[in-house]
Amino acid sequence: MGDRPEGLEAAFRESLGAGLVVTSGGLGPTHDDRTVETLARVAGRELVLDSALEREIGGVVRGLSERFRRPYEEFESGVRKQATIPEGAESLGLAGTAPGLVLEVDASVVVVLPGPPGELQRLWARALETVPVQRVLEAASRPDHRILRFFGLPESAVARVVERAGGEGEGVDITICAHDLEVQVDLVVRPGAESHADALQRALAEELPRAMFADDERPVEELVLDLAREQGLSIAAAESCTGGLVAARLTSVPGSSESFAGGIVAYDNRLKRDLLGVPDVILSRHGAVSAETAAAMAQGVRGAVGADVGVSVTGVAGPGGGTPEKPVGLVHLHASTPGAEEAMELHLPGDRAAVRRRAAASALHLLRRVLAQSRHTRA
Amino acid sequence: MGDRPEGLEAAFRESLGAGLVVTSGGLGPTHDDRTVETLARVAGRELVLDSALEREIGGVVRGLSERFRRPYEEFESGVRKQATIPEGAESLGLAGTAPGLVLEVDASVVVVLPGPPGELQRLWARALETVPVQRVLEAASRPDHRILRFFGLPESAVARVVERAGGEGEGVDITICAHDLEVQVDLVVRPGAESHADALQRALAEELPRAMFADDERPVEELVLDLAREQGLSIAAAESCTGGLVAARLTSVPGSSESFAGGIVAYDNRLKRDLLGVPDVILSRHGAVSAETAAAMAQGVRGAVGADVGVSVTGVAGPGGGTPEKPVGLVHLHASTPGAEEAMELHLPGDRAAVRRRAAASALHLLRRVLAQSRHTRA
Repeated sequence: MGDRPEGLEAAFRESLGAGLVVTSGGLGPTHDDRTVETLARVAGRELVLDSALEREIGGVVRGLSERFRRPYEEFESGVRKQATIPEGAESLGLAGTAPGLVLEVDASVVVVLPGPPGELQRLWARALETVPVQRVLEAASRPDHRILRFFGLPESAVARVVERAGGEGEGVDITICAHDLEVQVDLVVRPGAESHADALQRALAEELPRAMFADDERPVEELVLDLAREQGLSIAAAESCTGGLVAARLTSVPGSSESFAGGIVAYDNRLKRDLLGVPDVILSRHGAVSAETAAAMAQGVRGAVGADVGVSVTGVAGPGGGTPEKPVGLVHLHASTPGAEEAMELHLPGDRAAVRRRAAASALHLLRRVLAQSRHTRA
Repeated sequence: MGDRPEGLEAAFRESLGAGLVVTSGGLGPTHDDRTVETLARVAGRELVLDSALEREIGGVVRGLSERFRRPYEEFESGVRKQATIPEGAESLGLAGTAPGLVLEVDASVVVVLPGPPGELQRLWARALETVPVQRVLEAASRPDHRILRFFGLPESAVARVVERAGGEGEGVDITICAHDLEVQVDLVVRPGAESHADALQRALAEELPRAMFADDERPVEELVLDLAREQGLSIAAAESCTGGLVAARLTSVPGSSESFAGGIVAYDNRLKRDLLGVPDVILSRHGAVSAETAAAMAQGVRGAVGADVGVSVTGVAGPGGGTPEKPVGLVHLHASTPGAEEAMELHLPGDRAAVRRRAAASALHLLRRVLAQSRHTRA
């Protein structure tokens, strides 16, 4: 609905004065992107055309104009707009054609970042290396930040262990957050509070040993690929209701081709039979959404793709297709390895997108578990 | 890092007084979710245990406790916390175990929604049906909102047409926003400004006829499935660098099984040959990332899956794997139908996630284009 200029201006006026002010978005080439001009006005700085920046953006835009086969002059006013920055601002480099900026205003350091999350993260990393931002960070004391992650437990089970072990306070801030069947505990530990944090961590590790799976924020697909690579195993996925989400998450990790061979999205029963070799008798006796079909899919995809480990997902994502015996949210998973078979039955709440997302997350956790076991068995 | 109570309280104090105040998140069962208690404090309301709500949440939690095989009492304090609401608040129903709420505070209506986007949207739809929210909406005049969407053009090309046709003003607010190679123009039209909005709309339709593809916000995967269903055609996807994203987007649409048959994620060259029938000579002569391989993949997946229409994606998503001839961002797409073959070569900017996302979006647009053509040819 457009960024209202008055709202933006009020936000800048309110935040200038803080040590560090970070903005995201509103850097595009068109008139309705107003972050830079508003910042200049509030900070009382002239807007100046930075000619080095104009050349840099112009270079990118020339490529764009060729790719889109449009004359360069269509872009010219946009280039000038994006190369015009507040006096004293330092460029962080380009996100697309938009420069990120750092600007010191009295005691504040303002970091202007692009909106798209990937670009924001990339330029934020550069902002962290600039002198003004480094000075702000050095002045702030960095608390110790510990992470513990759990799968297959409700948030409240984790909260109870935390409470019994002394809970929040004594210099430890605790956040417990559930997302797609994972529960993440963040401990922010002030200096001197390490022993209370240690006690909390020990209690969680001792009382919930099976559920705890990580002490960092790496996504589960990365943990799965690391476990597979360590053991020289290749992975294949056979998906029905998740329709490619498991494969997409695994292939989102750079270098995943080393351990992920491929996947088959067998939406149709005919494909479960023709591509994955699920016997007709299993489909007709147990149905497409069943533990038996899931097992046959996981074993079948190992053969079809020629991989060591197969994982499968079949379920009712909804909103249609549910029956009293097989309601929306019922999902069967199966993992098949040279040494083990493991099944999981889920009854997932939520709409179609939530069921699919949670089923894919669970399939990755099932893979993680069987790969951790096979490493354990080998060792 | 935890929601700081002071920050929350200040935000409530600042926003109470507006006609409508909407919050999201902070409704979980644990102590660090503080939205409801903070609202009660700022609004000067007692917190009361709503026993009907307690029974409703208790029912859901009993199911959870059985699923997770944990004793019910582990959850009890969480149930009580989530059933305790400000006096006078009305429940919107549960998101998981958390109730959404509507509360009137003097001249303000406060709507308390959960954080997860799907749940937020579901309960927001319910909030819109409540008497207090309806009253607020009736008091506000609703401007006419028009949408125009384009593919394969830079934002600035669209902006130039808009400028030449008179641009913003005269009662029309314009937002131009680019996302994954789509450009969306939003026109918010105040009463009396319809003729200027019509002129803008006409100019865009006449000057950019090939690029304009929709006048609503339905995602491109939905447009593709509608076009296929109308013509009784089935679709299959063969993916390399997108690793399942195209299939995942198509299957995200309810009822997609009617037109989407299945997909093959052929990450490995061996699978491109064994599952998709890409000839060895094409792979060795042109490489896996080539127009020739893309064409063979699209044709091959039609046969493998038994579908009418095949779409394929092969490219270098990065960060590794690029060469001077085939740099990161090079992607070949191909669509194969009974009546037509269409290829697309892309040079995509951005990191691995952006290249994959944009390649998947482009593959869907290529499908949309060939399906729109085949409908045209048939008609």
